[in-house]
Amino acid sequence: MSDLALIGMASALASGLCIAIGSIGSAIGEGRALAQALASLAQQPDEGNTITRILFVGMAMVESTAIYCFVVSMILLFANPFWNYLLSQVK
Amino acid sequence: MSDLALIGMASALASGLCIAIGSIGSAIGEGRALAQALASLAQQPDEGNTITRILFVGMAMVESTAIYCFVVSMILLFANPFWNYLLSQVK
Amino acid sequence: MSDLALIGMASALASGLCIAIGSIGSAIGEGRALAQALASLAQQPDEGNTITRILFVGMAMVESTAIYCFVVSMILLFANPFWNYLLSQVK
Amino acid sequence: MSDLALIGMASALASGLCIAIGSIGSAIGEGRALAQALASLAQQPDEGNTITRILFVGMAMVESTAIYCFVVSMILLFANPFWNYLLSQVK
Amino acid sequence: MSDLALIGMASALASGLCIAIGSIGSAIGEGRALAQALASLAQQPDEGNTITRILFVGMAMVESTAIYCFVVSMILLFANPFWNYLLSQVK
Amino acid sequence: MSDLALIGMASALASGLCIAIGSIGSAIGEGRALAQALASLAQQPDEGNTITRILFVGMAMVESTAIYCFVVSMILLFANPFWNYLLSQVK
Amino acid sequence: MSDLALIGMASALASGLCIAIGSIGSAIGEGRALAQALASLAQQPDEGNTITRILFVGMAMVESTAIYCFVVSMILLFANPFWNYLLSQVK
Amino acid sequence: MSDLALIGMASALASGLCIAIGSIGSAIGEGRALAQALASLAQQPDEGNTITRILFVGMAMVESTAIYCFVVSMILLFANPFWNYLLSQVK
Amino acid sequence: MSDLALIGMASALASGLCIAIGSIGSAIGEGRALAQALASLAQQPDEGNTITRILFVGMAMVESTAIYCFVVSMILLFANPFWNYLLSQVK
Amino acid sequence: MSDLALIGMASALASGLCIAIGSIGSAIGEGRALAQALASLAQQPDEGNTITRILFVGMAMVESTAIYCFVVSMILLFANPFWNYLLSQVK
Amino acid sequence: MSDLALIGMASALASGLCIAIGSIGSAIGEGRALAQALASLAQQPDEGNTITRILFVGMAMVESTAIYCFVVSMILLFANPFWNYLLSQVK
Amino acid sequence: MSDLALIGMASALASGLCIAIGSIGSAIGEGRALAQALASLAQQPDEGNTITRILFVGMAMVESTAIYCFVVSMILLFANPFWNYLLSQVK
Amino acid sequence: MSDLALIGMASALASGLCIAIGSIGSAIGEGRALAQALASLAQQPDEGNTITRILFVGMAMVESTAIYCFVVSMILLFANPFWNYLLSQVK
Amino acid sequence: MSDLALIGMASALASGLCIAIGSIGSAIGEGRALAQALASLAQQPDEGNTITRILFVGMAMVESTAIYCFVVSMILLFANPFWNYLLSQVK
Repeated sequence: MSDLALIGMASALASGLCIAIGSIGSAIGEGRALAQALASLAQQPDEGNTITRILFVGMAMVESTAIYCFVVSMILLFANPFWNYLLSQVK
Repeated sequence: MSDLALIGMASALASGLCIAIGSIGSAIGEGRALAQALASLAQQPDEGNTITRILFVGMAMVESTAIYCFVVSMILLFANPFWNYLLSQVK
Repeated sequence: MSDLALIGMASALASGLCIAIGSIGSAIGEGRALAQALASLAQQPDEGNTITRILFVGMAMVESTAIYCFVVSMILLFANPFWNYLLSQVK
Repeated sequence: MSDLALIGMASALASGLCIAIGSIGSAIGEGRALAQALASLAQQPDEGNTITRILFVGMAMVESTAIYCFVVSMILLFANPFWNYLLSQVK
Repeated sequence: MSDLALIGMASALASGLCIAIGSIGSAIGEGRALAQALASLAQQPDEGNTITRILFVGMAMVESTAIYCFVVSMILLFANPFWNYLLSQVK
Repeated sequence: MSDLALIGMASALASGLCIAIGSIGSAIGEGRALAQALASLAQQPDEGNTITRILFVGMAMVESTAIYCFVVSMILLFANPFWNYLLSQVK
Repeated sequence: MSDLALIGMASALASGLCIAIGSIGSAIGEGRALAQALASLAQQPDEGNTITRILFVGMAMVESTAIYCFVVSMILLFANPFWNYLLSQVK
Repeated sequence: MSDLALIGMASALASGLCIAIGSIGSAIGEGRALAQALASLAQQPDEGNTITRILFVGMAMVESTAIYCFVVSMILLFANPFWNYLLSQVK
Repeated sequence: MSDLALIGMASALASGLCIAIGSIGSAIGEGRALAQALASLAQQPDEGNTITRILFVGMAMVESTAIYCFVVSMILLFANPFWNYLLSQVK
Repeated sequence: MSDLALIGMASALASGLCIAIGSIGSAIGEGRALAQALASLAQQPDEGNTITRILFVGMAMVESTAIYCFVVSMILLFANPFWNYLLSQVK
Repeated sequence: MSDLALIGMASALASGLCIAIGSIGSAIGEGRALAQALASLAQQPDEGNTITRILFVGMAMVESTAIYCFVVSMILLFANPFWNYLLSQVK
Repeated sequence: MSDLALIGMASALASGLCIAIGSIGSAIGEGRALAQALASLAQQPDEGNTITRILFVGMAMVESTAIYCFVVSMILLFANPFWNYLLSQVK
Repeated sequence: MSDLALIGMASALASGLCIAIGSIGSAIGEGRALAQALASLAQQPDEGNTITRILFVGMAMVESTAIYCFVVSMILLFANPFWNYLLSQVK
Repeated sequence: MSDLALIGMASALASGLCIAIGSIGSAIGEGRALAQALASLAQQPDEGNTITRILFVGMAMVESTAIYCFVVSMILLFANPFWNYLLSQVK
């Protein structure tokens, strides 16, 4: 049963580190864009609607890289092909 | 019973590091946006409402990457599929 | 009794590092926002109330990422599912 | 069956780290471009359409490096040639 | 008696590193806010009272993240659940 | 069959890290150029066509370093000479 | 007597690293505040008393994080619960 | 056959890391030059031809360091003298 | 006699690293304050006495963090409780 | 035959890392010089010839450090004295 | 005689690293202060005597942290209590 | 023959890393000087000859540190005293 | 004779790293001061003598930290107390 | 003969890393000073002789730290006391 433990360990660590490391860049990038949006708003209040719209569309795009990490993290936890194969062998 | 210990160790470490590393980017990004919001407020007090609204919507979006990490951290502690499978085998 | 020791070691280390690493980003982010708030106050004293209010609401939001880490750290110490299971087996 | 476990471990770790590390640069690069786009919009509102168009085409190009990582990550999980060969041997 | 030694080692190391790493961000964040407070004071001496009040309330909030680390560090030394359980077994 | 496992592990890790590390520089470089392009556009809208053309030709050149990494990553997965030789020996 | 040596080693290392790492942030934060205080003094000599008072109160607060580390370091050396327990067992 | 595996592992890892690390500097350097070229174009549109020509000749020169890495990476995969010697011994 | 060697090794390493790492922050912080003091002096020569007085009081405060490290380093060398206990056992 | 494998492994790794690490500084330095050359060209178009000439002579000089690394990398692959000696012993 | 070797190794390494790491901060801090002193001198030549006096008193203070490291380094080499004890045992 | 392999491995690695690490600083320093030379040329074209002469004499001096590394790297490969001694013993 | 080898290895490594790491800070600090001296000279040529005198006295002080490292490095090579003791035992 | 190999390995690695790491700071410091010299020359051409003289005297001083490393590196290769002693024993 040792193979199960090795795959499980590696998957738990990879899953935790994947979303942790992956969210650093995303959060910093979004924070930077948000900060600039607020500065632009103070400088040009009349363009508020355009700035807000582009900000949220752009942040969704930056967020997408965090979501890739979240997806891989979830796959490693709940749809892990290596783990599933071993389980199918054991049963 | 050694497999249980290995999976448990890896899950405890992954859970702790996941939220710890994941919150760095999020906190720095939010702090930057908050700092800029206060600067914008001092520069353009009349836009206070718009700035505040966009700030908190944006911070919620940045916070979301920390929440992904928190979710994965909780899953690793309380809904860990690798641990649960091993427990089901032991019982 | 060796499994207990391994899980205990991993949990103690994860708990200590979780809150330690997690508080870095939070403290730097809050310090930055606080510094900017004081600069804004000196530039626009009339907006003191608004600046103070947004500052503390925002800092509470940044603080939340440190609190996630504190929660996980406490769970690893006092409500650790891996440790509790092993204890229930030993008794 | 130990070979399966080694390949599985390496693939799980590589898959998680690949998308995690790969998304850092992409998210920071996109965040930077987005922040500048908002600054340019506030400075030159009349060029809003051109700025927006170039921004999203460019972000798609930056996103492509994250997508390369996502593709390699998916291949390592679901179309892994090393794992598939070993499975074909076992069956 | 080897389990005691392992748990003790891990707890001593985690306790020392927890407060050490956790105080870096806190001290830098507070230093930054303090520096800005002094700059604001020189720029707007009339707002001295408001600046001082917000500075110390805010620094207390930043200090809180260092205090979380101190609390976890003390728990690991003097109320360590893993150590206490093992002692209760030995006696 | 142990040689196969070692080569497979090394190739999976190298493939994942290759594209992950290689895309950091590329994404940051492209993001920087894109940000400057938007700033230039706001400053000199009449040169929009020239700026856009040079931007995309240049980005393609920067992208090329990411593509070298992607090519090596694919070779390591699907045209790996070390793995192929071992397979030819086994059959 | 091997357990004593392990706990002693870990405590000596943790004690030395705790105060060493913990004093980095504190010293840099205080140096920054001190530098700014001198700049403010040169800019607004009339506020010398207020600046000096806030500077030293604030530096005492920053120093507190270094003192937490010093306290933990001293506890690890002279009131170490793990070491004391083992000694009480040996005697 | 163990020597083959060791050489193969080292070559696969070296090949992947070589192009990955080597492309970081190249991509950042090119991105910087490209960004400055666009800024210069906006500042001095009349020199567009000269700027563009020097930009692409210079980028080709920067690209050359990435190409050195790609060449070494290819040699390690397809013209590896260590691997070839061992193969010639085995046959 | 092996326990003595382990404690001695750990104490020698901890002592050397403690003062080495601990003096980095202190020296950089003092250098920064000193540099700013000289700049202030050139800008406002009439305040020379006040600036000099605050500079040296403040530097003494920053120096205190280096002195904590020096104290711990000396304790580890000459008043090490772990070493002393082992010696008292041997004699 | 194990000595051959060890020397081969070390040479393959050293060769790959040598050119990879060595090209980072070179590419960044050249990119910086190229960026400044384009800025100077926009500022002083009349000096275009002198700027271009010095740029390419200087870049060749910076490139020389990358070429040293490439030479060492090639020597390690194709004129490796350690490998050649071992081969001459084996034959 | 193995204990002697272990203590000797650790002391030699600790001694070398102690002064090496400890002199980084000190040299950078002094260089910064010296640079600023020269800038101040050029700006306010009449204050040359005061600037020079404060510079050298301050640099002596910064140098003190390097001297702490040098002292510990010399103690580890020539007055090492762990080494001396072991020698007294051997004789 | 194992000693030969160990010395060979260490020499190959040291040789590759020596020139690789040593060329980073040199290339960045030369790139910086070259960039400034081009900026100075655009600012003061009349001093072109003096600037060019000092630039190339200075770059030769900076290059000298890379050449020290290259010399050591070549010595480690082709005039390695450790390797030569062992060979003289074997023959 | 194994003790001699261990002490020798540690001393050779410590000696090489001591001067290598210790010269980084010193060289950067001196370079910074030298750069500022040249800037001050261009700004205030009449103070050339004073600037030059303070520059070289100050650089000698910064150089002193590199000389501490060189002294320790030489002691470790030629007056190493650990090595000398072992030799005196062997003879 | 194993002691010879260990000392040889350590000396080869220490020698290569010593000059490699030691030349980073030196090259960057010299590059910075050279860049500033060229800027000063463009700003104040009449002081060309003084600037050039101080530049080269200062660079020789910065170079000295690289030369210390080169000397230690050469000693480790050609006048290594540990290696020489062992050879004298063997003969």
